[in-house]
Amino acid sequence: MSEDAAAIEELIHRHVAAIRAKDIDAVMSSFAPEVVSFDLGPPLQHGGGEPFVRHWQELFHAYQGAIDYDISDLSITVGEEVAFSRSLNRTSGTIGNGKRSERWLRWTACYRKIGGRWLIVHEHVSVPVDSRSGKACLDLTPEAR
Amino acid sequence: MSEDAAAIEELIHRHVAAIRAKDIDAVMSSFAPEVVSFDLGPPLQHGGGEPFVRHWQELFHAYQGAIDYDISDLSITVGEEVAFSRSLNRTSGTIGNGKRSERWLRWTACYRKIGGRWLIVHEHVSVPVDSRSGKACLDLTPEAR
Repeated sequence: MSEDAAAIEELIHRHVAAIRAKDIDAVMSSFAPEVVSFDLGPPLQHGGGEPFVRHWQELFHAYQGAIDYDISDLSITVGEEVAFSRSLNRTSGTIGNGKRSERWLRWTACYRKIGGRWLIVHEHVSVPVDSRSGKACLDLTPEAR
Repeated sequence: MSEDAAAIEELIHRHVAAIRAKDIDAVMSSFAPEVVSFDLGPPLQHGGGEPFVRHWQELFHAYQGAIDYDISDLSITVGEEVAFSRSLNRTSGTIGNGKRSERWLRWTACYRKIGGRWLIVHEHVSVPVDSRSGKACLDLTPEAR
């Protein structure tokens, strides 16, 4: 594995650990200031800055206690200063109403090497939707490909 | 704009024209054989090959007549052999039940330069979902950021 690929893999594992720990500063340190996020919930896109911090804080508050967050099927493609990764991420935890939530998310992250350091400049998080019913497909698993 | 950025922009416009024309061969020519697609509908991910062709054919058949497909807010980031783009894509047309469908999709595409030619090796297409109702947010527009 190249040095850059190892650095991105480390960034990903640090990012996942930060989500599990609900550590907002550590989560934010993965992102470039100019990040554009296509996140699971509305709106269509989030920019960076203070509203993005609040968005993550609300997400953390939606869970009672810990968030389990695991990455599988990770693939990283690295160029000289541009890279991307894709993975299927299982997130689970107890949401505000006391209900147990578990779902698989598709995650695409796009990176730039800025000042010698890899940062996420774009990410895309989603679940598939059933176009006929208009419902999100929240119970899919990687096994049901 | 660099030569590579221009080549990717051309690929994107060719891809969009192919979708509008429902030209399956032209659509497929944008993708690397090993493409992994996180598409709007289930399953979580699609590989390439014959099932991916059938998936696109079914998508085309779901529309009566033409598909309108327009790209906005396009951003392309290009490295030496790795690149990615993001955009908000408006798709509209008449679906099988005679109903007019119009929605904004988030599109992330990831590229590699293979044998001197840029190809999509990964794409991610989605709409946001409302976690509370479990419903897809199909009526969002870029203006409602």
